[in-house]
Amino acid sequence: MSDNAKFVEDITDKDDDFSKWYNEVIRKAELADYGPVRGTMIIRPYGYALWENIQKLLDTRFKEVDVENAYFPLLIPKSFFEREAEHIEGFAPELAWVTRGGGEELEEPLAIRPTSETIIGHAYSRWIQSYRDLPVLINLWNNVVRWEKRTTLFLRTSEFLWQEGHSAHRSIEDAEERTRMMLETYRALAEEDLAMPVVAGRKSENEKFAGALRTYSIEALMSDGKALQAGTSHNLGENFARSFDIQYSDTDGQRKYCATVSWGASTRLIGGLIMTHGDNAGLIMPPKVAPIQAVIVPIWRKEEEKSAVAVLVEQLVKRLKANGVRVKADWREETPGWKYNEWEMRGVPVRLEVGPRDVKTNSVMLVRRDNRAKEAVPVEALDNRLPQVFGEVQKGLFERALKFQAGNTHEVSDYDEFKQVMAGQRGFVKVKWAEDTEAELKIKEETKATLRCVPLDQAGFTPGPSLFTGKPATGYALFARAY
Amino acid sequence: MSDNAKFVEDITDKDDDFSKWYNEVIRKAELADYGPVRGTMIIRPYGYALWENIQKLLDTRFKEVDVENAYFPLLIPKSFFEREAEHIEGFAPELAWVTRGGGEELEEPLAIRPTSETIIGHAYSRWIQSYRDLPVLINLWNNVVRWEKRTTLFLRTSEFLWQEGHSAHRSIEDAEERTRMMLETYRALAEEDLAMPVVAGRKSENEKFAGALRTYSIEALMSDGKALQAGTSHNLGENFARSFDIQYSDTDGQRKYCATVSWGASTRLIGGLIMTHGDNAGLIMPPKVAPIQAVIVPIWRKEEEKSAVAVLVEQLVKRLKANGVRVKADWREETPGWKYNEWEMRGVPVRLEVGPRDVKTNSVMLVRRDNRAKEAVPVEALDNRLPQVFGEVQKGLFERALKFQAGNTHEVSDYDEFKQVMAGQRGFVKVKWAEDTEAELKIKEETKATLRCVPLDQAGFTPGPSLFTGKPATGYALFARAY
Repeated sequence: MSDNAKFVEDITDKDDDFSKWYNEVIRKAELADYGPVRGTMIIRPYGYALWENIQKLLDTRFKEVDVENAYFPLLIPKSFFEREAEHIEGFAPELAWVTRGGGEELEEPLAIRPTSETIIGHAYSRWIQSYRDLPVLINLWNNVVRWEKRTTLFLRTSEFLWQEGHSAHRSIEDAEERTRMMLETYRALAEEDLAMPVVAGRKSENEKFAGALRTYSIEALMSDGKALQAGTSHNLGENFARSFDIQYSDTDGQRKYCATVSWGASTRLIGGLIMTHGDNAGLIMPPKVAPIQAVIVPIWRKEEEKSAVAVLVEQLVKRLKANGVRVKADWREETPGWKYNEWEMRGVPVRLEVGPRDVKTNSVMLVRRDNRAKEAVPVEALDNRLPQVFGEVQKGLFERALKFQAGNTHEVSDYDEFKQVMAGQRGFVKVKWAEDTEAELKIKEETKATLRCVPLDQAGFTPGPSLFTGKPATGYALFARAY
Repeated sequence: MSDNAKFVEDITDKDDDFSKWYNEVIRKAELADYGPVRGTMIIRPYGYALWENIQKLLDTRFKEVDVENAYFPLLIPKSFFEREAEHIEGFAPELAWVTRGGGEELEEPLAIRPTSETIIGHAYSRWIQSYRDLPVLINLWNNVVRWEKRTTLFLRTSEFLWQEGHSAHRSIEDAEERTRMMLETYRALAEEDLAMPVVAGRKSENEKFAGALRTYSIEALMSDGKALQAGTSHNLGENFARSFDIQYSDTDGQRKYCATVSWGASTRLIGGLIMTHGDNAGLIMPPKVAPIQAVIVPIWRKEEEKSAVAVLVEQLVKRLKANGVRVKADWREETPGWKYNEWEMRGVPVRLEVGPRDVKTNSVMLVRRDNRAKEAVPVEALDNRLPQVFGEVQKGLFERALKFQAGNTHEVSDYDEFKQVMAGQRGFVKVKWAEDTEAELKIKEETKATLRCVPLDQAGFTPGPSLFTGKPATGYALFARAY
């Protein structure tokens, strides 16, 4: 059992040093590793399997609202960026440039896509002719590069994997409807699949996407009290359509500009999942996205016990796989205790222990990762019980995180109080607010808190003065320190 | 019907100008489009859905032989390439270089990956310690850039999508077994899923991968008589392990070099599918990978007919979807004839025509794309009949292509005869052969034919002189002009 103890000792306490804990868990659970180029990330098989599960769930949600997948090129001519003034201003500092190819200097530098609005705009201007062609609803699963000075695995890396959706519509109203619809797919993914509660809202002018009319986001609260922007949806109005000449002939024969929308979510969601649910024993995976939902740990002393246990384990694997459970039996030459710790570190939601006594009673010992609750389950009851347990874990994780979010959302009406909460870094601060970029920047400078969003849900709002400026508030806004 | 006639007139005859036909079909079927940077490709939703289906099938085959997916960074330091001498020599002319990022000149240029052996080697040297860690079996689905002078959609583009598998083993023998195992997954995908017959074989020294010990490929014969390399698998021996110091402690305590393997197949498979099955009406999709397997075309004249037809169509869509058929009903405001032509162009394997008479008899008219065979099928028989038809189409396409391949494989023993066949560009030429790079290059210069492979299946081979050199032949080799 010395191995066992050592394994646990190795992890930094979450409350002592959250960011050290975060990095250790990622490395020990073999989710990811840094690449040789600064700020780049290798996503290892266990981390990638998690990403594939998230992809499948989000892709299904996209297809339910008629979005189709496609692929657009990685390399974008410099001139494309220059067509939309705010866009180039926003992205210029983060671009990586290809200047040589095929042994020659290129005439025009090519940017590696940081996002694809420009190259999409170019194609849509050729593809879209008539109102009959609208809406165009396309999504890309790809990699993008944004040169970052300070990087953290999954949260901010120079290259990351994501999806970027791009649609074109007949009017800004249609675009707005789609913008909100896609935001809702993110909310549903975060809350229903990742068990990660979020606040959906609108970004301030200062925080909106470079070139957008309006940006919406979902904001989650990590267990260290910092906020994470976990998905964004942008109504681009006619801005990109005018820059790239995306026009259509309407029913009245008039040529009109389209309104466009883009929306994106990335491998950052994995960072959110880790920081929402993880504890001092390691990761905790919500069953819906867990690469391994149940791990079977066989226990034996004598050789004849081993073979009897093996028969039951094999039976269980077959049975669970047939029921669509992602299951793995761990037959490595380590102690059961070592294995318990390793699978807890990797966040597998359910462990099934199978020893000689279980063989006799034809049952298994089921142990939950989230609350360590144990129960003996007869083998024939497992087909019903296991999906129930997965449901309970999924729900339990969400409720625990929601309770944390509620307990760390502070409504304040006074800037001193605001600064006090922020000094402790804890959570969302909810204030009455009227749009004011100057005030926002001043608050950021003084407290490091940024305006996360103006929540769509404004329940309970009553008129009153805005924090900081005292202007008549137009609604609640959420501030927090953020990743 | 003028639209209808126009649609057909627009396609170039395959026999008149094969490459024009190829490009027109891709554009009209909306599979792909060129990107703004020379040689880059936009894969449109219909083409991407086809790629996703191919991915799913190949990914399943990989998982059956224990391969896991992961992600590695896009950008590779220049110094990595320089560690394996043959590798850099082979890839240097095709590399694209990032020299600026985040507003600054980079100290070391970064290549956009043309393939990931080097960056994988760097990681494996850290991850692999003991024989217990072996084999490592990882696959990446990603994009790569190779600067190409002459490009063709799907066949050769500056950026393309592919998978690259990378494994590490205890010995060159283990590596060889895996190399052949992965080649077999490609053969199975090509023949069983894409209905594209291939010859599996070994590449000559001249044609092998830069840095490999041995390269194997599958070679398909396109309907214009040119060969297409459709997947490759490389036994890299200890070459990359020595360059990147990938060592393990063996059971005897000795430090030993791993042997590594890599294997890849790309969106080029889509080009192969088009050129294997397509005809003068457009694409023909094998049902296993078709984005739409059955299209329903409603037919009506009077309004009251339309509503009755609509009821049956809706019923059919629901029924087929429930059976897992990828089905689409086409209610656009065009003539049935126009729709027949468009869906033939797009290669949908089965068309179901539903008109007022079909409503009365509760049946549909089923029309096959591949041979235009028609049959009336009662609605209640469709659940059984449709999968049968898909199976017949899949088999029919394979057999037709296999017959073409057999009819265009010419065994010759004389170089004059060889040149005659090559003058007509038609097919594979099978000759007795002994490895000889100089002879190979001379033949290429004189006939444009390259040594495609030394087939694994050497049935019927008897000793005799090698073509061109007259040296004692070691086996059959296949030559052809190739894409």
